[in-house]
Amino acid sequence: MCALRIDGRACDELRPLVLETDYLSHPLSSVFISCGKTRVLTAVSCEEKVPSWMKNQKVPGGWVTCEYGMLPSATTERCRREASAGKQGGRTVEIQRLIGRSLRMAVDLENLGERTLYLDCDVVDADGGTRCASISGAALALAIGCKRLFPAAENPFKELVAAVSVGIIDGVPMLDLCYEEDSRAEVDMNVIMTASGKLVEVQGTAEGAPFSRAQLNELIDLAEHGLKQIFVRQQEILEKING
Amino acid sequence: MCALRIDGRACDELRPLVLETDYLSHPLSSVFISCGKTRVLTAVSCEEKVPSWMKNQKVPGGWVTCEYGMLPSATTERCRREASAGKQGGRTVEIQRLIGRSLRMAVDLENLGERTLYLDCDVVDADGGTRCASISGAALALAIGCKRLFPAAENPFKELVAAVSVGIIDGVPMLDLCYEEDSRAEVDMNVIMTASGKLVEVQGTAEGAPFSRAQLNELIDLAEHGLKQIFVRQQEILEKING
Amino acid sequence: MCALRIDGRACDELRPLVLETDYLSHPLSSVFISCGKTRVLTAVSCEEKVPSWMKNQKVPGGWVTCEYGMLPSATTERCRREASAGKQGGRTVEIQRLIGRSLRMAVDLENLGERTLYLDCDVVDADGGTRCASISGAALALAIGCKRLFPAAENPFKELVAAVSVGIIDGVPMLDLCYEEDSRAEVDMNVIMTASGKLVEVQGTAEGAPFSRAQLNELIDLAEHGLKQIFVRQQEILEKING
Amino acid sequence: MCALRIDGRACDELRPLVLETDYLSHPLSSVFISCGKTRVLTAVSCEEKVPSWMKNQKVPGGWVTCEYGMLPSATTERCRREASAGKQGGRTVEIQRLIGRSLRMAVDLENLGERTLYLDCDVVDADGGTRCASISGAALALAIGCKRLFPAAENPFKELVAAVSVGIIDGVPMLDLCYEEDSRAEVDMNVIMTASGKLVEVQGTAEGAPFSRAQLNELIDLAEHGLKQIFVRQQEILEKING
Amino acid sequence: MCALRIDGRACDELRPLVLETDYLSHPLSSVFISCGKTRVLTAVSCEEKVPSWMKNQKVPGGWVTCEYGMLPSATTERCRREASAGKQGGRTVEIQRLIGRSLRMAVDLENLGERTLYLDCDVVDADGGTRCASISGAALALAIGCKRLFPAAENPFKELVAAVSVGIIDGVPMLDLCYEEDSRAEVDMNVIMTASGKLVEVQGTAEGAPFSRAQLNELIDLAEHGLKQIFVRQQEILEKING
Amino acid sequence: MCALRIDGRACDELRPLVLETDYLSHPLSSVFISCGKTRVLTAVSCEEKVPSWMKNQKVPGGWVTCEYGMLPSATTERCRREASAGKQGGRTVEIQRLIGRSLRMAVDLENLGERTLYLDCDVVDADGGTRCASISGAALALAIGCKRLFPAAENPFKELVAAVSVGIIDGVPMLDLCYEEDSRAEVDMNVIMTASGKLVEVQGTAEGAPFSRAQLNELIDLAEHGLKQIFVRQQEILEKING
Repeated sequence: MCALRIDGRACDELRPLVLETDYLSHPLSSVFISCGKTRVLTAVSCEEKVPSWMKNQKVPGGWVTCEYGMLPSATTERCRREASAGKQGGRTVEIQRLIGRSLRMAVDLENLGERTLYLDCDVVDADGGTRCASISGAALALAIGCKRLFPAAENPFKELVAAVSVGIIDGVPMLDLCYEEDSRAEVDMNVIMTASGKLVEVQGTAEGAPFSRAQLNELIDLAEHGLKQIFVRQQEILEKING
Repeated sequence: MCALRIDGRACDELRPLVLETDYLSHPLSSVFISCGKTRVLTAVSCEEKVPSWMKNQKVPGGWVTCEYGMLPSATTERCRREASAGKQGGRTVEIQRLIGRSLRMAVDLENLGERTLYLDCDVVDADGGTRCASISGAALALAIGCKRLFPAAENPFKELVAAVSVGIIDGVPMLDLCYEEDSRAEVDMNVIMTASGKLVEVQGTAEGAPFSRAQLNELIDLAEHGLKQIFVRQQEILEKING
Repeated sequence: MCALRIDGRACDELRPLVLETDYLSHPLSSVFISCGKTRVLTAVSCEEKVPSWMKNQKVPGGWVTCEYGMLPSATTERCRREASAGKQGGRTVEIQRLIGRSLRMAVDLENLGERTLYLDCDVVDADGGTRCASISGAALALAIGCKRLFPAAENPFKELVAAVSVGIIDGVPMLDLCYEEDSRAEVDMNVIMTASGKLVEVQGTAEGAPFSRAQLNELIDLAEHGLKQIFVRQQEILEKING
Repeated sequence: MCALRIDGRACDELRPLVLETDYLSHPLSSVFISCGKTRVLTAVSCEEKVPSWMKNQKVPGGWVTCEYGMLPSATTERCRREASAGKQGGRTVEIQRLIGRSLRMAVDLENLGERTLYLDCDVVDADGGTRCASISGAALALAIGCKRLFPAAENPFKELVAAVSVGIIDGVPMLDLCYEEDSRAEVDMNVIMTASGKLVEVQGTAEGAPFSRAQLNELIDLAEHGLKQIFVRQQEILEKING
Repeated sequence: MCALRIDGRACDELRPLVLETDYLSHPLSSVFISCGKTRVLTAVSCEEKVPSWMKNQKVPGGWVTCEYGMLPSATTERCRREASAGKQGGRTVEIQRLIGRSLRMAVDLENLGERTLYLDCDVVDADGGTRCASISGAALALAIGCKRLFPAAENPFKELVAAVSVGIIDGVPMLDLCYEEDSRAEVDMNVIMTASGKLVEVQGTAEGAPFSRAQLNELIDLAEHGLKQIFVRQQEILEKING
Repeated sequence: MCALRIDGRACDELRPLVLETDYLSHPLSSVFISCGKTRVLTAVSCEEKVPSWMKNQKVPGGWVTCEYGMLPSATTERCRREASAGKQGGRTVEIQRLIGRSLRMAVDLENLGERTLYLDCDVVDADGGTRCASISGAALALAIGCKRLFPAAENPFKELVAAVSVGIIDGVPMLDLCYEEDSRAEVDMNVIMTASGKLVEVQGTAEGAPFSRAQLNELIDLAEHGLKQIFVRQQEILEKING
């Protein structure tokens, strides 16, 4: 046990992970993911057309895109509703671009056909790591959605993707930070990986002080350790879904 | 039994009603309300200041206001995210003004003190009647929130409020319309009432053909019948909450 | 005479009503309506195409829609110009949706053909009841416009519509409230009716205290009494207009 | 008589000018000006504070500013409502800046005291020359407003201002262009002058072909001729107004 | 020498003028113009389509339009970035409309073919006269761009255009005002001319006190004097450019 | 020499780097940086107040923030001007957040005092790597600005920061990608470091295929190699600047 963590977890221990499928009535597929107290509703909707820039540039195939949002009451202090503020904040834009980019790596866009898959990630309760939870949840929802849209032989879904945050707090590397840990972290890193163990995106940010190459490596090791467990859980569920 | 209704309900029968309290970690209080397949997350947050117009006009006391939203995947066809569209649609604005107005009737604003209570109503799944579900859920959340904020003797909460939709379909008045019924209704009415049986707001709208005074009365009778049952359910829960 | 009213009117007495047609040079038809000191310029313009959502959903026929605005100098305190504020306020949106919805009831949209009729309602002077004046004026302008657009046999205009406000002030039901009365009303109701006496929309709102079924009925009686007089005036003018 | 003009006017003849004062109930003063078929409602409202930039820069005295708008039904083809479009168009911005700048020349801002005078110019019917009509109307409204706000000895209003358009059509200089003339003009000029005959603003624009110094002078001569008549009319009315 | 000017220039002397062509890698043509310390990057880009309003109105030929901007660090006090403010200010809109209008006079739009030429004028350093510098620079860039786009026989470019500011300071007319002079000027005028000596636009504005016809003429004389020198410089450069 | 690179550079070779200081007249400091054909104007302006959120949260000290923009003519195809589009695009927002975050690591915010330093990064010519060029240029401008604002003993500037892009193209790791290389890269990484060799931010993104840990390490090695040379150049210039 790791005496340093506020919830008594070991430094290399994930928060309890729950993946609930088809929580919603209407979309093609949905996954309600909980990572500890962080809860995100992810959903996949399919529209039978592509963005106009794809048409203009005559890019073949389809598109996968993401929109991210937070319910105003998802945070400790109520956060302002972006719809009434009249625009999405910079943090929101940055996160939804990251999610979209990562999940496009999971799909063979050319074989998707002329359609757009929308990933909606809405944070119901926030306790740190919402972008990673969104990716791990939406990747599963995307896998399920593709299974439903396509016969197995034509399924453009390539492989599962998952994300986890790691960070250094008081000099100690830790896995899957909650909000309080995240606020105190000297270094904060999000690691996004494929089920086959390759990196999709690495974003490491010094918050208080710059970090060394050795620390970078230690953090990615820790992330890999956690991601393997997430892949097992995603896989179990995906196998039970009929196409 | 009413052969006309798609879910086999009697014409004067409510959809199954579920009220789950404190679904969220952070806000002062929250109620997750389900009316059949319509599910709305309502939450109350308290800010210790009042809108600037109140200060300028030196209105004494506090304020209660509402913001309403729909998750993009809450509807049959994915609806556009208002935050990325850059503004709230006319329907959203109309609904949140109605909810705010109705719930202000439940509270003695002068005795609320210099604070604003935000009611966030976010539709997770939509199957008709989302504004009524929002009101019935938020009224309970508001009652619970006030119980927590104030000693019993100073509680500015006056009485519970609830709302239900009624309508005329193929000439037959029906209670608590689901989406498919709502789309076909000739007349659509929302009735908002206090627990003591007085009207807070009546909004009756001819959709296909204008209606008579007799029909208006029949519809309000039907609404009262349903509202009484909702008040019983709200009351049961409220009594179990400790201030 | 009703000692309670600031302008000495009887409680069931309308304000002086003036309907001036073709006040404007350019639109298909226009009515400048005065209800006491409330003056609204209503105009009908015709565009030979329908909104894109109608085309996409392959709804047959045409559309009627409304835009409402207030001149900044129409109110006691200058109100902010919405064009420079960069958006229409919630009250404006709510009112123009109500007007559009009510006036669509006056027209057989399918037989309107593939065209959109725009109703512009611009308040030049405001003294309460601007949405009702807008409806009564725009309904007449719409009737005149249709007479001009269509041969009598193909005219899709069904019947005139009018609106009036009623309210309870110090416990007394009153007809056609001016601004000062409206501000003090305990209950405020807008009643929209067809010339044949059926209800198009009823919106009753408790402002200070909830109201009883008996009061609701009393108010609608009062409204009907006033609306009959408005229909007589509209009709007189419409008959003199050549198609 | 000038055979070239569509309404039979002489080339140096103004359109019929009507100036109606206090057309509106609420503002400090208002002038409804008609120049032929162009009709503009101008109004002056007073707010007892100055823009924040004046406070920050510690500029002494007050401010005069203008907002200009067109009713959607004021033009041959209905023009889009700027409030619903969500912003003022470039033409509107350019016009209201011109009006504000010109009218500030009519007032001694330092002696205005810490207040802002809003000039609202709303075009009810447009047939060319709306910016000039706005200036001539608003200048009179401003003079009246100042007379009402200040004792004669402290009145910061300096002198009347008026504007008129001139242009060259088929090589012939003409005064006070209507819309059809304006659309065909090779050169289009707005001349704004003080009652004492000095220039406040001259804006000459080549529309089809550049123009010579001689033509520039001819046009200003023509404008002066028209402006003298407008000043007589403004003056007559202003003298009858009691402070 | 003119003792009155802060940089020791004679009253009828231009600031040092530098015209650097093809400063940018990507656009069709570009001119980096310096008028003393005022520096503006002007560029011409060509798009092979016309604005939708031209298509709808079936106007034959092409279009020339301008967008103007200032780098936030171009001014004494950092000015707000319009992209992050969410809209272009009134001054920006007014200037870019003026530039576009003036430069359209330099081109035979019908013979331009179905294309739009974008003029981007971005102020890198501002010391007064940015709109005039933009016009003189963009006119040369436009001439170069057309030479590159068209064979000589089909070149729709008609003739060079240039602009200069003049003003009256302490009663003395001066040419090509710098920022400090501009801020103190009683009258401020921008004169835009063709190389053949005709006027394209004259905008004279009283800043402190209205001005006489005699002063107007004196100012235009002074402007002509300066513009002749600018045309010589533009011409020299243009002749060296190969089509 | 590396036969693979379009400009003949070795795979581990930087593009020609030019750092020109005080290019602009008005701001506290400015650096015009060229990395090959990519040219970015970076400037530092100081405002003697902090953002309101800092005041509200009573965070001590000052703030460093960045705004990033591209001139419309900086790209191969003219890109839309964000000021006229009415908002900053997602890419812009993401980049300016990254720059601001990285540069805040270079400064001791608490000792900055109650002031905000604005970093404006405006891309004049874009040929890949604009965010990295912005960081390397703005870091130097920030160092110079702090030297001018503070006596040496109180200077809150901690150490220089620089950024470079690396990527894998056709399986080969390359340093400092130009636009064409960037478009074809399988992996794209931005590495931001301090002069003392610690990491500030690492952002590695799989564009075409996910990447291995070994590749990640190779890329960071390559980046370090390039960054050392940039630090030498920044340092040389900084030493010559007098405080």
